[in-house]
Amino acid sequence: MIRPAARADVPAIVSLIRALAEYERLSDAVVLDPVALTEHLFGPRPYAECLVAEDAGAVVGFALFFHNYSTFVGKPGLYLEDLFVLPEQRGKGYGKALFVELAKLAIARNCGRLEWSVLDWNEPAIGFYKKLGAVPMDEWTVYRLSGDTLAKLAGG
Amino acid sequence: MIRPAARADVPAIVSLIRALAEYERLSDAVVLDPVALTEHLFGPRPYAECLVAEDAGAVVGFALFFHNYSTFVGKPGLYLEDLFVLPEQRGKGYGKALFVELAKLAIARNCGRLEWSVLDWNEPAIGFYKKLGAVPMDEWTVYRLSGDTLAKLAGG
Repeated sequence: MIRPAARADVPAIVSLIRALAEYERLSDAVVLDPVALTEHLFGPRPYAECLVAEDAGAVVGFALFFHNYSTFVGKPGLYLEDLFVLPEQRGKGYGKALFVELAKLAIARNCGRLEWSVLDWNEPAIGFYKKLGAVPMDEWTVYRLSGDTLAKLAGG
Repeated sequence: MIRPAARADVPAIVSLIRALAEYERLSDAVVLDPVALTEHLFGPRPYAECLVAEDAGAVVGFALFFHNYSTFVGKPGLYLEDLFVLPEQRGKGYGKALFVELAKLAIARNCGRLEWSVLDWNEPAIGFYKKLGAVPMDEWTVYRLSGDTLAKLAGG
């Protein structure tokens, strides 16, 4: 039901990423290129890994993750960038099964934490995460530099 | 002034991580092991990279970072886990210089973003980040599973 993604899954994963972006009302932000995604998942310097959930031979969900690192814990962690299950395939346990597999990987790789981010209005997801026992890092905010601002800073 | 860290810098980096944890009122969370940090920075499977700021031959600040990945942008990013300059060495531009070097690395490596997290009460840091042009991801919250909760989920 849950297995590591293969190169042949990339088109299905791209579709799921676009569906996730639509759900998160962030479709405008998606500039994803399937060729680049293949390179980033399966090339000589992978930047992320991916699990897929399968139902009757079709990919119905995915979890894309990478290693982060905590200096305080002194250990790597797993950071879950995206998790998505097709709306018509929900309630069958795929989301939970993807999380269980990620937790198993985190333990097997001696990671201190499994972390991810959620949009504050996404109540169904938040309820699910709290049932898993996840704790919100309420006191922290992520800051971001990108595009022109990042280029300008790089210019000194 | 700013250079990549070497193995010989690990003791100085460990001291700076402890000083940062004290500043963040998170000293209880630090279980850092210098041997493990050396392995994680310089071993066969590095989990993070580190820049140091030097003043008259002494390490006075550091920036520890790793690659994250955005599926929406379809590119890796740089995530800055820790940045710290000794209190007595502030106001000399080391923090800014570390950020400029990170921005240069991000551009050179074709990264879409440079990101990091800040404690919401850390006003001096927030002011500095806003002056750099950084944008807070206010609508997002990080969730975390660790310790027994992570182990329990891995158990199914």
